Amino acid sequence: MVIRMIVLHPSYIVTMDKNNRILEDHYIGIENGIIAYLGKEKPSEGDIVELPKRILIPGFINAHTHVAMTILRGLKDDVDLQTWLNKYILPLEKLLKPRDVYYGALYGIAEMLSNGITCFLDMYYHEIEVARAVVDAGIRAVLSYGSADVFFNRTPDEEFKIAEEFRYNLQKIAEKNPDKVFFAYGPHSPYGCTKELLQLFSQAAEENNIRIHIHLSETQQEVKAVKDATGKTPIKYLDSLGFLSSKVMAAHVVWPQDHEYSILSERGVHVLHNPSSNLKLASGICPITRYIEDGINVALATDGPASNNRLDIWKEMYVASILQKGIRLNPEVVPASEAMKMATINGARALGLERYIGSLETGKYADFVIVDLNKVLESTPFHDILSMIVYSIDSRSIESVWVAGKKLYDHNEGFTTIDIDALREKLNEIRERLLREAR
Amino acid sequence: MVIRMIVLHPSYIVTMDKNNRILEDHYIGIENGIIAYLGKEKPSEGDIVELPKRILIPGFINAHTHVAMTILRGLKDDVDLQTWLNKYILPLEKLLKPRDVYYGALYGIAEMLSNGITCFLDMYYHEIEVARAVVDAGIRAVLSYGSADVFFNRTPDEEFKIAEEFRYNLQKIAEKNPDKVFFAYGPHSPYGCTKELLQLFSQAAEENNIRIHIHLSETQQEVKAVKDATGKTPIKYLDSLGFLSSKVMAAHVVWPQDHEYSILSERGVHVLHNPSSNLKLASGICPITRYIEDGINVALATDGPASNNRLDIWKEMYVASILQKGIRLNPEVVPASEAMKMATINGARALGLERYIGSLETGKYADFVIVDLNKVLESTPFHDILSMIVYSIDSRSIESVWVAGKKLYDHNEGFTTIDIDALREKLNEIRERLLREAR
Repeated sequence: MVIRMIVLHPSYIVTMDKNNRILEDHYIGIENGIIAYLGKEKPSEGDIVELPKRILIPGFINAHTHVAMTILRGLKDDVDLQTWLNKYILPLEKLLKPRDVYYGALYGIAEMLSNGITCFLDMYYHEIEVARAVVDAGIRAVLSYGSADVFFNRTPDEEFKIAEEFRYNLQKIAEKNPDKVFFAYGPHSPYGCTKELLQLFSQAAEENNIRIHIHLSETQQEVKAVKDATGKTPIKYLDSLGFLSSKVMAAHVVWPQDHEYSILSERGVHVLHNPSSNLKLASGICPITRYIEDGINVALATDGPASNNRLDIWKEMYVASILQKGIRLNPEVVPASEAMKMATINGARALGLERYIGSLETGKYADFVIVDLNKVLESTPFHDILSMIVYSIDSRSIESVWVAGKKLYDHNEGFTTIDIDALREKLNEIRERLLREAR
Repeated sequence: MVIRMIVLHPSYIVTMDKNNRILEDHYIGIENGIIAYLGKEKPSEGDIVELPKRILIPGFINAHTHVAMTILRGLKDDVDLQTWLNKYILPLEKLLKPRDVYYGALYGIAEMLSNGITCFLDMYYHEIEVARAVVDAGIRAVLSYGSADVFFNRTPDEEFKIAEEFRYNLQKIAEKNPDKVFFAYGPHSPYGCTKELLQLFSQAAEENNIRIHIHLSETQQEVKAVKDATGKTPIKYLDSLGFLSSKVMAAHVVWPQDHEYSILSERGVHVLHNPSSNLKLASGICPITRYIEDGINVALATDGPASNNRLDIWKEMYVASILQKGIRLNPEVVPASEAMKMATINGARALGLERYIGSLETGKYADFVIVDLNKVLESTPFHDILSMIVYSIDSRSIESVWVAGKKLYDHNEGFTTIDIDALREKLNEIRERLLREAR
């Protein structure tokens, strides 16, 4: 099959490449889902789509979520993490059927697409259903099964076996969907897993060259609980097990102790930063300015939709940037360019997908967002493109969202792969059933 | 002239009245711009507009801005307040002509309307041009001329006379536009005005029963500068002049000292809280949780569009709420209901307009926003309406915005009173001219 190249001609292309280049009046050619051409010269072949007053930016990467939790959004707000989890979320989560997770995930994926997110890292139960939703929607994802032998009263071996079964089943899906579905181990946290289970994952990750996705040092309560149980802070505890490495994608990491910054940077741990969730659940403020200074890779994330309550990395860029300025009393920290990196290329690096996605360069997948400068008033006037993107406009400016060269969302035409009205009804049905059963 | 009542029948009406009532399946009747009816029973007369899956909320009040600064948006980000002001903003502001301010203000008003704001408090130069934009747009506003004898090298009497001239000229406009245009004195700040000028305003405000709009205790630098100059912190300094009272609308108030909370609460000072601007300019974090505990009235504001960079109170609700939770490590502070109050009725109270606006009650003006639950995915599922409004959705959900019973903005049809395309061109022209002249 010969596929003709599609050529887009927007006003600007924000590449997020090594030199942070912003290309004015350039052409971008897409073939077989890949960026095949990027240049000032008009290609001689291909269908050219003129995009005046449009900006192309790389698709955002949501580096930590529990996407199926759309079902539970708004169940209870204005309470702390442990109350929220134990009193409101867990009782309903126990009632979730696999198919519920599929619908919840598909809905969350639709939401993410509408906010310009083209790849995400997930952790949940019935995760194979999330994989099915990913494939049906056509988005890209790294998926981990949330393993927690402590929570579920299982032996480490039993819990590890469940994760390995998921890996096996996901592998079959991944083979049919090259470079769309990826696997990561997902030990829930230092307090949700026994030492034995953590070590099983650590060894398997090393042997099979697989990434590990974990919650780490999210709250002061966690730090105290792990310290009480092990005599060590969560970061030192994991490090003492030989767990920390550049394969580890650690969500939150809000409460490092002073000497732990160097552990994180020396081991090459990736920090997945969820500013809105950490604030809203009163977990605290992650010291990303220090992480960035220390050369630690920081990627932006939304956390689950029930604790944020939105799946919008564009919003997280804004919150992350102004929050650090305000906390550090320094307006120069986390400038717009850094916020954009955390939302794109740093996410790709964290997920181990830097050779595929995260920037707009030839040879990478054509995962991008078309931003329409006419859509909102806040884009006028503008001076610096990245500054405008991060501070002045938001996901309202999205015209369309593309994964592997295929348009999956268009603001006017809707979703290519998802029947959103039927799905919305389905979500409400599931929610009502859960609330009925929980009574 | 007989005006037939318009009757709207939305799914919910968020009243923000004293009892914070949320009315399900109620009718709201509007006559002569006023809410004439609010009840469960269908009125026998009037044209009924069915609004299924819609929520009516009071129009947001933006309690502190410099709206014409749309012209200067994005000029320079990622720098501190004093650098931003002295190096980038002031050189261009000096080149502003009165008509530029008109266009800048009209553009900002359009932006505010598109974000559900129906009333605002402003401070700027050439403020009579802002008044003209307010009248042309049909929005509601309290306007103050930014008086600063220190900045402009004028005598206190000269500067006061300019403010009084503005008051006189505004009065003529206000008479023709009842309850739409209001006046407030606008001494810029304790460091921008001499003691004599502050006292002139204080006396005149007392004599004429007029409100005073001032910047107060915005940065640590200000606290130090005022202390160096007067021997007192800004709040204590103003209080020593007998300046502070329930007529004072004080923007920012980020750096009170411990004993100053009681001064603010005893004098009945209204605090205008600009969370995004304070973070972005690294001014700090205003302790509104303490203010609220102490019974101080806190209203939400955006600050000028060049320091935020958006005129969106809906966003400020989200930022204000999650920020306080995160800072206080307490998820219960500034719950959704409090955030909504700060964005509506507290703003009306601060501006002295509580009898006219800020809640949806019979006898008040019909200033409201129609929220369409079908417009974004984030509205599904929902449990608690206020929680959904503050945490899950944003101004993307706005269907239309009404002031005094007249629709001024419709998401599909655009603006009723503003030719936005021509205005956008105009704004770009002004910006280019300013940059050219500044070279």
